[in-house]
Amino acid sequence: MGTTARLFYADSETNPDLYYLTGFLAGDPFLYFEHAGRKTLVLSDLEIDRGRKEATVDEFVRLQKITEEVKKRFTEAPRDPAVRIGAHIQILAAERGIGAFEVPGNFPVAVADVLRGYGLGVRWLPPPFVPERAIKTPDEVEHIRQAIRHTEAAMAAAIDRIRKATVRGDKLYEGSEPLTSEQVRTTAHRVLFERECHAYEPIVAGGDQGVDPHDRGHGPLPANLPIILDIFPRDNATRYHGDMTRTVVRGRASREAKRMFEAVRDAKAGAERMLRDGVDGNAVHEAVKKTFADSKFETGERNGRMVGFFHGTGHGLGLAVHEYPGLGQVPETIRAGHVVTIEPGLYYPGLGGVRLEDDVLVTQNGCTNLCTFPDEFEI
Amino acid sequence: MGTTARLFYADSETNPDLYYLTGFLAGDPFLYFEHAGRKTLVLSDLEIDRGRKEATVDEFVRLQKITEEVKKRFTEAPRDPAVRIGAHIQILAAERGIGAFEVPGNFPVAVADVLRGYGLGVRWLPPPFVPERAIKTPDEVEHIRQAIRHTEAAMAAAIDRIRKATVRGDKLYEGSEPLTSEQVRTTAHRVLFERECHAYEPIVAGGDQGVDPHDRGHGPLPANLPIILDIFPRDNATRYHGDMTRTVVRGRASREAKRMFEAVRDAKAGAERMLRDGVDGNAVHEAVKKTFADSKFETGERNGRMVGFFHGTGHGLGLAVHEYPGLGQVPETIRAGHVVTIEPGLYYPGLGGVRLEDDVLVTQNGCTNLCTFPDEFEI
Repeated sequence: MGTTARLFYADSETNPDLYYLTGFLAGDPFLYFEHAGRKTLVLSDLEIDRGRKEATVDEFVRLQKITEEVKKRFTEAPRDPAVRIGAHIQILAAERGIGAFEVPGNFPVAVADVLRGYGLGVRWLPPPFVPERAIKTPDEVEHIRQAIRHTEAAMAAAIDRIRKATVRGDKLYEGSEPLTSEQVRTTAHRVLFERECHAYEPIVAGGDQGVDPHDRGHGPLPANLPIILDIFPRDNATRYHGDMTRTVVRGRASREAKRMFEAVRDAKAGAERMLRDGVDGNAVHEAVKKTFADSKFETGERNGRMVGFFHGTGHGLGLAVHEYPGLGQVPETIRAGHVVTIEPGLYYPGLGGVRLEDDVLVTQNGCTNLCTFPDEFEI
Repeated sequence: MGTTARLFYADSETNPDLYYLTGFLAGDPFLYFEHAGRKTLVLSDLEIDRGRKEATVDEFVRLQKITEEVKKRFTEAPRDPAVRIGAHIQILAAERGIGAFEVPGNFPVAVADVLRGYGLGVRWLPPPFVPERAIKTPDEVEHIRQAIRHTEAAMAAAIDRIRKATVRGDKLYEGSEPLTSEQVRTTAHRVLFERECHAYEPIVAGGDQGVDPHDRGHGPLPANLPIILDIFPRDNATRYHGDMTRTVVRGRASREAKRMFEAVRDAKAGAERMLRDGVDGNAVHEAVKKTFADSKFETGERNGRMVGFFHGTGHGLGLAVHEYPGLGQVPETIRAGHVVTIEPGLYYPGLGGVRLEDDVLVTQNGCTNLCTFPDEFEI
């Protein structure tokens, strides 16, 4: 029957587990497996020299060496890439006495089926497939801290541009032109570019645009209404992320908006006080929900759209912007070494959205807030 | 048994087929299927309003509506996302009389297995899963043309910086400091940033670094040796790509390097003359190989590393930088409406690498080169 190996066939640009396990960054899919305590990377001749320099594995195998074996089995080279790579994997498995593979749930079905056709076992495991990645080493924490410094620099520049805008009627202006979400996003983007970060698409969403958590924001920014800024870059030097949200009002916030801001700030502080080794992530989320309910901020459907607080309280942060563990509906034991976001928010059409988000390192007896940026509201 | 539907569960940021079919861009996975001639998008409440505005499909289904059905089947909501999404798909299939799904090879094995567990068929097809995407509409050609304009602007700025460098000994200088690959890359990157393109990581590789096709280039740039510049941005406005390579020598090129440049230029021109509706991509590739062999540029392993011409002649270009069809080892019928790169190259340690790459639109009787940038060598 053979023994079991952990197997990946993916590119490590988009698969953070694979990058974590190998330390090798590549945009094209490659083979990696762990068997009998050894980490093995299978690389083409184009990649193997770079692999030897960069990867943190025990063994390198030349893909082309196996390709020569594969060729002997087929009268014509198989055109289907899954058939090709499956034949390579089968040869490796036979050589090493591997009878079954454990794979992540997003492993390609075509390769899995080819392996099963050879009589090999393929079993997928639910996430997190690499649970050890959630516990950050001191180096990883420093990488995240550095990514947060970049995030804060971008946030400062973006808020500064809003602060300097002129309030005229219900809009913000720079000189005679309305100030737009796109312009403020470009300001943040430019800071991140100079700091060699991948910016993705920061959210700069004013008024009712801020009520839809997936609206990135567009067009003229409102005066006297909340503007949500959510910035979550990847530091290209390390591939680790920061993720921070602030909400500001340029002009005068309504009393109700101020009350929302205070409730969100209090909810964030409350979650921060609860986080420590061993706490249940869902318990933290339920506490945030209760804070809002106690302050009479209702959550539910109103005119066919969700209002109040209707997303998770936080998520793991590291090589991915969103990763295990979550602070949400599902029970998860939070451990020392986890880095998670805390990001409560309230959203009501007419009033707009308020969200605040920090990143914290969980410790034995509490947590350390890695963000240093102030929570200002009216500017 | 039911009928068969084409099914995706992926995010359209990284899956160009899905973006092509839906016109809907999202970074999180979503469900899409085609059944009985109708295109159906299943979106969460967070996404469905944006979907209705942006997507080019026939029908929208609220994910949450199905979630209510799913909840009735489980005493506790399943934690595994594959089990959750699989239950949603099974309910849709039962409602619509779908008995089997055709999926792309990279469909997640976990979801496939859950569906099979319900007795549904899941059959993956080899690429291209969406062959119609290879034939570009006039609009798509214009999008690619625009992306190439951005590419050429970045190329011009990068080459200009090299042209202005001072030759001192075997290195290039700006004032008293060596000019590096990283600096020239930043120049290209900055132009692309201003033009709202995603730059990926342009290649600026001098001397022997250019011999390794996967080396992006690093450190001081050489004088009197070839420097390969390969730039392949995505225009964020349309998601289409340009892809262009030039090779320059600042200073004086050796006679052998000049001969390499001329052979590569001739090979590119020869491939361009061959391309037309109905030609075999492999025949074009074999012709390029023959051009080099005829000019006594040998291809093979030398001291354990490949030298000569050892990659494909070209590849499709569109919503992906590399897509169907290829001009390489595998026979592929090239059709009018395909947009492909032509990128022959020669690589010899000591001499360096020379590669030239243009993008062409295949037509009934020939092809149109979409690139207008000159092929200069010594600058």
